[in-house]
Amino acid sequence: MMNVDEKYMQLALDLAASAKGNTNPNPLVGAVIVKNGVIVGTGLHRKAGEPHAEVHAFRMAGEHALGATLYVTLEPCSHYGKTPPCANLVKESGVSRVVIAMQDPNPAVAGRGIQLLQDAGIMVEVGVLEQQARRLNERFIHNMLTHRPFVISKFAMTLDGKIATHTGHSKWVTGEGAREDVHHIRHEVDGILVGVGTVIADNPSLTTRLKEGYGKNPTRIIMDSSLRTPDNANVLNTEDAPTILVCSDDVSQEKIHLFTEKGVTVLPVQKNEYGLQIDEMLEKLYIHGITDILLEGGSKMNASFLQQGAIDKYVVYIAPKVLGGNLSLTPFAGYNPSLMHEAWNVEFASFDKIGEDLRIIAYPKQGEEK
Amino acid sequence: MMNVDEKYMQLALDLAASAKGNTNPNPLVGAVIVKNGVIVGTGLHRKAGEPHAEVHAFRMAGEHALGATLYVTLEPCSHYGKTPPCANLVKESGVSRVVIAMQDPNPAVAGRGIQLLQDAGIMVEVGVLEQQARRLNERFIHNMLTHRPFVISKFAMTLDGKIATHTGHSKWVTGEGAREDVHHIRHEVDGILVGVGTVIADNPSLTTRLKEGYGKNPTRIIMDSSLRTPDNANVLNTEDAPTILVCSDDVSQEKIHLFTEKGVTVLPVQKNEYGLQIDEMLEKLYIHGITDILLEGGSKMNASFLQQGAIDKYVVYIAPKVLGGNLSLTPFAGYNPSLMHEAWNVEFASFDKIGEDLRIIAYPKQGEEK
Repeated sequence: MMNVDEKYMQLALDLAASAKGNTNPNPLVGAVIVKNGVIVGTGLHRKAGEPHAEVHAFRMAGEHALGATLYVTLEPCSHYGKTPPCANLVKESGVSRVVIAMQDPNPAVAGRGIQLLQDAGIMVEVGVLEQQARRLNERFIHNMLTHRPFVISKFAMTLDGKIATHTGHSKWVTGEGAREDVHHIRHEVDGILVGVGTVIADNPSLTTRLKEGYGKNPTRIIMDSSLRTPDNANVLNTEDAPTILVCSDDVSQEKIHLFTEKGVTVLPVQKNEYGLQIDEMLEKLYIHGITDILLEGGSKMNASFLQQGAIDKYVVYIAPKVLGGNLSLTPFAGYNPSLMHEAWNVEFASFDKIGEDLRIIAYPKQGEEK
Repeated sequence: MMNVDEKYMQLALDLAASAKGNTNPNPLVGAVIVKNGVIVGTGLHRKAGEPHAEVHAFRMAGEHALGATLYVTLEPCSHYGKTPPCANLVKESGVSRVVIAMQDPNPAVAGRGIQLLQDAGIMVEVGVLEQQARRLNERFIHNMLTHRPFVISKFAMTLDGKIATHTGHSKWVTGEGAREDVHHIRHEVDGILVGVGTVIADNPSLTTRLKEGYGKNPTRIIMDSSLRTPDNANVLNTEDAPTILVCSDDVSQEKIHLFTEKGVTVLPVQKNEYGLQIDEMLEKLYIHGITDILLEGGSKMNASFLQQGAIDKYVVYIAPKVLGGNLSLTPFAGYNPSLMHEAWNVEFASFDKIGEDLRIIAYPKQGEEK
């Protein structure tokens, strides 16, 4: 059973979550103001550049905020960004108590907002439904702490761990429900990444196609070390969505120019033993405004991210079928470990049924260095 | 919410299930007698040769059975086996209503018990919690309909579908909880099957080791077409448990004799393109008294059962780790399909967490012919 604080915080989290995919690079934030057991104000952050959640909630509450309790999913900001600091607004609103799910991981805030409220004599409580709040803003927290995009490895496999037959045939492993779920993730991320091999083989458009029709297209990011993307590739239609080609830094300026003149961004990075240097690529993509990336490549690309420790989340769909065959394709190719304890440990966060398929969400195990 | 009939039937199912592993070749059966809202009799079938569930329940109920309701998980038998028919006992007991979860799949009963009760003027209801009852006695139903053992394919893999590294190293994929779960299955089955390759490589004893200490050892069944099982193999210690070697029918009588004189049973069967003929082997094992088998072999043995359509249930453990490597071992080797729809369809029955691992239970999809 949830207590009263948790009940209102859950509502604030639900409000925050409703804007998934729209607030990048900002976090998802929801706010609820409660006075004498009645909700007098609600709000959420809808989009970067628009007012913060607290602003909406206080506008609604008006004078009812006096002596009320504010529930907010993230520490109110204490710095001047695109909007003035919310902590000042909270202070002036007259609320007597503020319940916060989690401290802001942004080093520019990181407790200063809380301090400001406490100094003003407001009762502050931090950590209510903190785990849910951290999960909700996992992308933002990762950005703040690493200055890199949050990388999601997604794959769909049979019950015996195969993503395609030995010929590469994979239409379809999972059912409609799971495939629709992937389009929801595409809608929520800034970038979707494949290798040039996938572009050449399947010529995908990599856009978001949701039944509801409101899907936001992510930036298409193609790992293409020698710029082999064909002229007629659908991903070069930059009217659908922006495209970034990541190539090796030894590619000629002339060749790069052929793509940039089509409106495509080309990011040259160094190479290492696994191929393109993923660390450098992620840093450059973050600077370019990409805060999260969905990997939709094949076994080789997955393996190079795995081996460079660059996967932040796993979304795995398991279809109710058994394919068999030792040559059938596997989620991660690449390096072949000799001992089972060389495996990368993860933590299962959830598993549920989507249509006929299962979905497992997992994260790299915390505190493990490989 | 369960209604009253379901509530008592659930209790009867729970009583029945408590004897798992002890009743083979008989089904698991539980019975509850209720009069005026009070349970006056309970019973379960504990072991083949011992009284049926109804007998225990009526002994306990005595004269209270008059006008009462009997809940029983399987149609009362109508034929003389090791014990007299229960339908007669029910008729004479004076109960006025009988609630039955499922009809007996045994062709010697198959509705005759129900008919007998109805002819005696007893109100009979069939099908309460039928699905649970069918699952509980899946092994018995399969035996009655096919005259073959019920075959369970079990494997433990990483989140990316690997059962071992390319060197065959697999200690351990899953944690203690999942490994203990496997020993519970060993306790419940008549037979455990591996290939001779596993015997030569690991020299396992294939016995049941439960923390509680009461584990029943299954018969060890080794697929060993040319009888290569080494003299010093632990599976030849027939003091621990019985052992059956299944070999090709072209093996010499002298060679067979070397094993039979050690107290081992040798079953010769024909070969086909996949190796030993699994259909023939299963028929012979059933005649030999093996009603269910846990497959604990490697990728090749799993594949030969898969391709001969001989798997009746899948128990899959997924460990929270990602191994990678296209040469890492996969649950099913063998035939490499070209198209995804060549996969064998299954239905997920359950998925839950066991310790740190996930367990998925699946069945071949009904009504599919390959």
